Amino acid sequence: MTVDDRPASFVEPRAVTVPRGELERRIGAFQARLRHDGVDAALILQNADLYYLAGTVQQSQLLVPAEGEPVLFVRKTLERAREESALATFAAVEPLPTLRRLGELVVDRLSGVPATVGLELDVLPVTAFRRYEQLLPGTRFVDVGLALVEQRAVKSPWEVERIAAAARIAEQVFERIPAILREGLTEAAFAGLVEAEARARGHQGIIRMRAFNGEMFYGQLLTGVSGAVPSFLDTPLAGKGLSPAVAQGVSFKPIGRGEPVVFDFVPVLDGYTADFTRIFSLGPLPDELVRAYETARRAQAAAAACARPGVACRIVYEAAVGVADEAGLAAHFMGHGPAQVRFVGHGVGLELDELPVLSPNDLALEEGMVFALEPKFVFPELGAIGIENTWRVTATGVERLTRAPEEIVVL
Amino acid sequence: MTVDDRPASFVEPRAVTVPRGELERRIGAFQARLRHDGVDAALILQNADLYYLAGTVQQSQLLVPAEGEPVLFVRKTLERAREESALATFAAVEPLPTLRRLGELVVDRLSGVPATVGLELDVLPVTAFRRYEQLLPGTRFVDVGLALVEQRAVKSPWEVERIAAAARIAEQVFERIPAILREGLTEAAFAGLVEAEARARGHQGIIRMRAFNGEMFYGQLLTGVSGAVPSFLDTPLAGKGLSPAVAQGVSFKPIGRGEPVVFDFVPVLDGYTADFTRIFSLGPLPDELVRAYETARRAQAAAAACARPGVACRIVYEAAVGVADEAGLAAHFMGHGPAQVRFVGHGVGLELDELPVLSPNDLALEEGMVFALEPKFVFPELGAIGIENTWRVTATGVERLTRAPEEIVVL
Repeated sequence: MTVDDRPASFVEPRAVTVPRGELERRIGAFQARLRHDGVDAALILQNADLYYLAGTVQQSQLLVPAEGEPVLFVRKTLERAREESALATFAAVEPLPTLRRLGELVVDRLSGVPATVGLELDVLPVTAFRRYEQLLPGTRFVDVGLALVEQRAVKSPWEVERIAAAARIAEQVFERIPAILREGLTEAAFAGLVEAEARARGHQGIIRMRAFNGEMFYGQLLTGVSGAVPSFLDTPLAGKGLSPAVAQGVSFKPIGRGEPVVFDFVPVLDGYTADFTRIFSLGPLPDELVRAYETARRAQAAAAACARPGVACRIVYEAAVGVADEAGLAAHFMGHGPAQVRFVGHGVGLELDELPVLSPNDLALEEGMVFALEPKFVFPELGAIGIENTWRVTATGVERLTRAPEEIVVL
Repeated sequence: MTVDDRPASFVEPRAVTVPRGELERRIGAFQARLRHDGVDAALILQNADLYYLAGTVQQSQLLVPAEGEPVLFVRKTLERAREESALATFAAVEPLPTLRRLGELVVDRLSGVPATVGLELDVLPVTAFRRYEQLLPGTRFVDVGLALVEQRAVKSPWEVERIAAAARIAEQVFERIPAILREGLTEAAFAGLVEAEARARGHQGIIRMRAFNGEMFYGQLLTGVSGAVPSFLDTPLAGKGLSPAVAQGVSFKPIGRGEPVVFDFVPVLDGYTADFTRIFSLGPLPDELVRAYETARRAQAAAAACARPGVACRIVYEAAVGVADEAGLAAHFMGHGPAQVRFVGHGVGLELDELPVLSPNDLALEEGMVFALEPKFVFPELGAIGIENTWRVTATGVERLTRAPEEIVVL
């Protein structure tokens, strides 16, 4: 029985589910890492990681021994997990009546108390962690969150297809904007109409971020000076937001003429995200912004030209920064003043904040990595402007996955 | 200078920000708890808690000594935190150049190494926690997450006004639905149009949940059999979702005639959430569902009638369950089969999953608590039906904060 043949009572028929071959390869690679790191087994708990290794986010615990067959212990909902997860075709998907019983189930499966168990300590709360310490006394716990983040940074061809499919939603919504954007509409009302277009096309709404306190809602639709308002997230643009409670994104500001409308949009389809920015305006923009936009496109070209397997992230970062410097726009690049951020891009996949981070770090690009490259400029009196595409690292360079025209759209 | 007089460069003018008096009372009550628990100071890090105690979610750490003045150490963005937070009018809001310096800043402020520091261990990831252990060697760390959750369960009159204002968005969107709902529209397209109405009215989009892996997107707009599909969350309804990656909410199912359209909607305004469910249908519903709906209304009435200060949550829960039992619908109440959940309501506020939980537990209701009460029935072949209102516990009973008519709306 293949994934697509299963009865569809729990699975949306138009959804793309994770195929068995993907799960087998992913689990195999993760097991190799566990063996390399001397870890006996891992328990995977967090939604993005569960989806990556088990193809389901049903409330469950995935036991991955360093060698042998994984087991998915499911608290809720077992039948749904069995239908959603291709794991059920080659491994055990079993009930977990209560968390209290997890210790004995693990010991039983591993034929003894494991010396070392990996948990996603980068995301698992302390109180939950202490529960695991009680469930498996005598076991030493180590972090496998970073190992998963590193593994997930390199996408399979199947995953690249998913990200490209997500990109299509952003492109389709981009094409609808001329019919939606009009003077006097508030940013919030504009966002609602734009988001409705994405939703009808299957945008899942929920955007996952790994960082503690990381939050994002469809991206940033920011207009005029709103685009220049910094906030708590490590992003070049943030926006005023509807209140300090959320402190990012759209506000009730009415959209005016001659100001940049930043369409920074995060499409998510079947779990996978892309990231995409284009600029609209009602009437022409100030020359200063147009020049900055052309500089952003040159920064993008310079960064993309040097990105290929083996090149360190810092080289790509410096290529973009160099273009901004030469144009005399260093003070406006990736934010302004103390809110400037020191990166020009970030990995995307099942979470919005994946590796590689295109910042001054020495991680080398690998074929199959997928990142958003987003050179942007911020002018406190005028707003923000810039471009963002999602790119795949190929054997010899990079390939753009977001395909809309790059010119500023003046309406 | 009051909050409302401040220049508005970072704050949306229509937003309601947390007044100084609220922050003073909240911090005062929290300090009393710290003293009672023998904790020298707390460091508050998580967005919902930061917003509660500091009125901002700027990237920061709020140091609350058991006695004396709190300090907000801000990494990003300091100026915005100073404008957003009324704390700046009576306490220090200072830069935190790097997290590395936090230890010395805390020791300096407290005039010595604190013996015991509280952290939100229920939400703080292990890796981040270990960083704090390094920053303050010699300090013992204890959990203050539960103390904050307990304190936040009792709302001030100002907070009740915020929740009531959020409820208005749900009611206004409810009134728009007859103009939006039509046969053949997919659940996803319907949701997009409904969500756009909420967004234009100031819905902040982001819904905060405290639980690990807790995720929610606007609530659950589910139609027909989709309403009966269970999933990972501890909720009575979940839905098929657009894919197993998200596993809840709307799907591409087209909306049909004679099936329940569950409008289970979570409005969020200025950080505060309400929760609200009403039922629509295109043409009449099967009698079995109509009878179940009337039972849900009676269960609501029975639960509301016994809810008042001093009454244990289990009494309210049992009142609702009793009505379902008497009607012979116990097997369908709050889910069906192994996916049934054992609660009929939950606190709402800055997070969707607050105390009190209306389940078999002994927490006594207090005046000022605000909860959503959601008796619902699930029929695998027909879908889900039920009602949900948000209620405030008064001195003598409960008051309903969501005010729309309760009849099934047949279009």
